[in-house]
Amino acid sequence: MMNYISLILLSAALATGILCSGQDVKQTVVEDFKPSTLNQPGKQYPQVNSRGRVRASISAPQALRVQLDIGGKKYDLRKDDKGVWTGESDPQDEGFHYYQLVIDGAQVPDPGSMYFFGAGRWGSGVEIPASDQDFYSLKNVPHGQVREHLYFSEITRSWRRCFVYSPPGYESNLSARYPVLYLQHGMGEDETGWSVQGRANLILDNLIAEKKAVPMIIVMDRGYATRANQPSSPGAGRTEAGPTVFTAFEEVLIKEIIPMIDASYRTVADRSHRAMAGLSMGANQTIQITMNNLDLFSYIGGFSGTSNYPGTAEIDPGKFMNGKFSDAKALNEKINLFWLSLGTKEPDPFPGSVGAFRRMLEKSGVKYVYYESPGTAHEWLTWRRSLYQFAPLLFR
Amino acid sequence: MMNYISLILLSAALATGILCSGQDVKQTVVEDFKPSTLNQPGKQYPQVNSRGRVRASISAPQALRVQLDIGGKKYDLRKDDKGVWTGESDPQDEGFHYYQLVIDGAQVPDPGSMYFFGAGRWGSGVEIPASDQDFYSLKNVPHGQVREHLYFSEITRSWRRCFVYSPPGYESNLSARYPVLYLQHGMGEDETGWSVQGRANLILDNLIAEKKAVPMIIVMDRGYATRANQPSSPGAGRTEAGPTVFTAFEEVLIKEIIPMIDASYRTVADRSHRAMAGLSMGANQTIQITMNNLDLFSYIGGFSGTSNYPGTAEIDPGKFMNGKFSDAKALNEKINLFWLSLGTKEPDPFPGSVGAFRRMLEKSGVKYVYYESPGTAHEWLTWRRSLYQFAPLLFR
Repeated sequence: MMNYISLILLSAALATGILCSGQDVKQTVVEDFKPSTLNQPGKQYPQVNSRGRVRASISAPQALRVQLDIGGKKYDLRKDDKGVWTGESDPQDEGFHYYQLVIDGAQVPDPGSMYFFGAGRWGSGVEIPASDQDFYSLKNVPHGQVREHLYFSEITRSWRRCFVYSPPGYESNLSARYPVLYLQHGMGEDETGWSVQGRANLILDNLIAEKKAVPMIIVMDRGYATRANQPSSPGAGRTEAGPTVFTAFEEVLIKEIIPMIDASYRTVADRSHRAMAGLSMGANQTIQITMNNLDLFSYIGGFSGTSNYPGTAEIDPGKFMNGKFSDAKALNEKINLFWLSLGTKEPDPFPGSVGAFRRMLEKSGVKYVYYESPGTAHEWLTWRRSLYQFAPLLFR
Repeated sequence: MMNYISLILLSAALATGILCSGQDVKQTVVEDFKPSTLNQPGKQYPQVNSRGRVRASISAPQALRVQLDIGGKKYDLRKDDKGVWTGESDPQDEGFHYYQLVIDGAQVPDPGSMYFFGAGRWGSGVEIPASDQDFYSLKNVPHGQVREHLYFSEITRSWRRCFVYSPPGYESNLSARYPVLYLQHGMGEDETGWSVQGRANLILDNLIAEKKAVPMIIVMDRGYATRANQPSSPGAGRTEAGPTVFTAFEEVLIKEIIPMIDASYRTVADRSHRAMAGLSMGANQTIQITMNNLDLFSYIGGFSGTSNYPGTAEIDPGKFMNGKFSDAKALNEKINLFWLSLGTKEPDPFPGSVGAFRRMLEKSGVKYVYYESPGTAHEWLTWRRSLYQFAPLLFR
């Protein structure tokens, strides 16, 4: 019995790196793996242990090399005598991560996981249970609905799609009208991101059940748009210069999506009842679009991104975005909430660019609220937490 | 010019097999491949040519063997000097097909396609454009919505999900009430099947726009259910004996889903305005459940399946399902529509089991409508066409 406990303590010490000084010391892996909650029905792999390691496994009898590719690092799997390859990653941050398998050079989704659109593709995802996972869990509270809404855009001359969250009670309380949050995904993601990886519907269901947020409609649209007569721009949305796809989305949102939503749902169609937020590229878009249209929006949320991206240099409020941030008194009167967030482990340039943007706001005297997600990087747990912190402040 | 035309004619003849007598004759592949409409954004492969061949391509520089696995057959791909493997299948039937890649023995989804739940997993799908694809295409007509509806089942003690189609006008015409079609997927599929692979929403949008079908709500639920105190049965739903998962779904539908739908949506909650249909396993379930509950349903649709599955023997209407089909006069008065369908290329035992069921109805004198989908097997084009034929007959 003592030996068993000693072994556990030793394992724990090794896993957390306490006893590891040399590079080649093999860490003992804590054997409490469980199937990821994002696995396909009945699939046993990938698995996650209490230290956040991800264990992948796949049958590939004739393969020469199989790797797990997660968090920017590839881990070699080991083959057993039945041709099944298995292996573990280093501990990952809590929350959601995209990953893939590499089989003899072929980059493929793991047949064990469900699939999520990110990094410009449908691919595998794994969930490291977070210490605060309760706020985005499926619980026994009244649930709203997520609706697929198809529409034709005259500006882009194409069919587009948004997902619309209608809160609990929307169907039974037919005379009620609701405020609207326009909520945007990041670069490489799409209109499915917020209601799937982001769990925006469950976060709001839980907040509304606890009366921490008012019932609201959430519109999750596709942040890419190209005018019918212009070529698409692959690196779009990333620079302050504002390429085609970026400015076309503003036009689609203002001229097509908002009027359509106000016509199709029981909204309160004024700026006091309209918010916009987004993550990363979506944060950049949010700040640009809301500051260009303060007659339409009074709540602004930038999660892990700002409109000076990727710049980290000091910003002159008199010049930035044509001086839109220079009149702090007018902005502070007009804007009900300017809200920014960042994960504490975000990579460059996010800490620098968000930091420079905050200093610009402070220099100018524009009020804002700032939140930091502890222990998370440029990933979905940062954004789930951001929505959880941001939504209760809306429409009060 | 003559040479070019001759080549096209020769290619056509070869591709259709006219000149192929020997097993080893290499068929010329018609080079008019286009990316499948079900590809991920921007992905060039898989592609489909005018003869229904599927061409797959994937980079796997270190692989020894890569295969395309479609329609029950594996096709070896060829490697080029850059390590990209490419190759074609035989011509496939028009419509939707599940498929996968096999890389050195590993069965994986194709990173080029979108993913669909079928055969018990999320996997790749490819679409061979059908001659009649117009009826399920996204067109410039008013569109309904597909809503994700989460609910807790007390019978199974678990969270379940259905997708609910609300027709165009549902949101604007708040005093209108609608009939309901309960529409079930097949074995190995789930509640996503009908609105994704099946395109049920687009089929109804188009029918309603042409005034060929009345506006209706469609509920697409998960056809598996296990009572909380009973173990799940993996081969469930396939036999007449009625294993746990099968009868538990009936109980969940009757006691939980129908009351929930009638409470949550503006339905007309009587048997004259309630239909049930399903494909394969879902057809088996539909016939069992509606015949057990004729006080609740008056329209019945069995697509590619009947409740004698997998039996092909003659059926005695006096004994089958406890004699439920023996009183034809009463049934013909009570049932507004009993509708069956099959694809002309369906494999055993479907032609035999559906045939035996039809002869039983005829022997008893129970009226029914029968439809055959030309040139399709036990696949989604058969079921899209079935819905397109069935829905106009409902609620008249």
